[in-house]
Amino acid sequence: MTADPLFSVNQMTVKQLSLPELVEACRASGVRHVGTWRAPVREYGVEAAAQLLRDAGLNVTTHCRGGFLTALDTDERAAAIDDNKRAVDEAVTLGTDVLVLVSGGLPAGSYDLAGARERIGEALVELAPYAGERGVRLAVEPLHPMYAADRCVVSTLAQALDLAERFPAEQVGVCVDTYHIWWDDRAPEQIARAGASGRIATFQLADWTTPLPEGVLNGRGQLGDGAIDLRYWRALVEAQGYAGPIEVELFNDGLWARDGREVLAETVRRFAEHAG
Amino acid sequence: MTADPLFSVNQMTVKQLSLPELVEACRASGVRHVGTWRAPVREYGVEAAAQLLRDAGLNVTTHCRGGFLTALDTDERAAAIDDNKRAVDEAVTLGTDVLVLVSGGLPAGSYDLAGARERIGEALVELAPYAGERGVRLAVEPLHPMYAADRCVVSTLAQALDLAERFPAEQVGVCVDTYHIWWDDRAPEQIARAGASGRIATFQLADWTTPLPEGVLNGRGQLGDGAIDLRYWRALVEAQGYAGPIEVELFNDGLWARDGREVLAETVRRFAEHAG
Repeated sequence: MTADPLFSVNQMTVKQLSLPELVEACRASGVRHVGTWRAPVREYGVEAAAQLLRDAGLNVTTHCRGGFLTALDTDERAAAIDDNKRAVDEAVTLGTDVLVLVSGGLPAGSYDLAGARERIGEALVELAPYAGERGVRLAVEPLHPMYAADRCVVSTLAQALDLAERFPAEQVGVCVDTYHIWWDDRAPEQIARAGASGRIATFQLADWTTPLPEGVLNGRGQLGDGAIDLRYWRALVEAQGYAGPIEVELFNDGLWARDGREVLAETVRRFAEHAG
Repeated sequence: MTADPLFSVNQMTVKQLSLPELVEACRASGVRHVGTWRAPVREYGVEAAAQLLRDAGLNVTTHCRGGFLTALDTDERAAAIDDNKRAVDEAVTLGTDVLVLVSGGLPAGSYDLAGARERIGEALVELAPYAGERGVRLAVEPLHPMYAADRCVVSTLAQALDLAERFPAEQVGVCVDTYHIWWDDRAPEQIARAGASGRIATFQLADWTTPLPEGVLNGRGQLGDGAIDLRYWRALVEAQGYAGPIEVELFNDGLWARDGREVLAETVRRFAEHAG
């Protein structure tokens, strides 16, 4: 089975594969797009990774992930901004125009979600033009509210758009990921809002399965295994004019324990069955 | 230390204690209010439990929990409504005027969150007057969005109020529980809405700690251990005129593994330190 022309695999979905193995698995499954992840790309070498992917004819849909911009400490904040600039530079090297941002959680001992969100906005004042000048758009990703304390104080598309809309659309958009927003009855209207202001920078799929694992990080469900009507969300996003690749990003201990090529082939099939 | 006069302990916080042990622990800690849980009360005998609590001078703040009203199958729906009527009857026997409802998750194979919420509304058409005629108010509890698939399709105070406001305020209100709503930037305005329409039936406290445990049910944090500004939420609720007891409801494997009397005494102290 050859992958849907819009199917993109985020590198984390098959993190058991090295970059050359990923390239080979994409060739075998007819996958044309990948989303990259910072740590393995840096480990392989950013230039070398870019070359490898380019030579294979693979398009990089997003680079994941910058962010973690909520520190209260001045030095930590400066370091985070520097690190995000490096992430933008990596995106340029990889040839993608989207850097996904996971904004960061509450600093230890803080109760102030609104203040933390405001610090993200302040960091974007410096990062947004830096990215825009290099042809990269920052995609603020709302994460499910279960991550609000420790990973991302931006919990809804509405909050992500409140941040993004302070900046030009070519500098800051949002990441729409079904796993994080499927529960939210306001998400459809916020997708329309994002479409109207040209803010849908990327669209990602994962399914919601229960029980959640300890730590709730690595339980994103294979497409079709869970509670999310993937076609419904795809139709909402595409109705707003989004016509780009659709990235499947699964963090799943069960999938990681299997043969990565087999997981990629399965994911290609599931995409066709449940989101095609 | 004698408990704050408004402190109420939900029976699940110290579920390792039998009902007589709970009564004795409340006496030792000067606790005047308890929230009861259906299974242990029924096991002990509802009449006997009511007598025991009454003789000890303990006020029952809520009975937990009815609900699970989202089934598609007609027989299952009828059985759920019957079971909820029994829960109302138990509340009457226990002398409490609040029955908390955990509404139920998605039926297997369904993607339809809105439809499931609508079935809750349909069930309340029968249950609300049944409860109201018996002096019991149903408290629709929004559960954290991480429970939307498998436990409760009502994920926000706004959704809970949309359901409650279809009925007279003396029949249906909402349960405000910090654990479930603390992440929601719309919750403060919804608490004001609930106050304005007289819908705050009960107010519960638990703190948000990470990492979440597998299944995410039994990781509610002891007061002061987590990310929630409990005093802030108490002030919001009390600004709306709520002056009733405040129930501490912790599902926590770590607390359950300890001596229940000690946990109750600690919870009394933590309430004073973090929510008093």
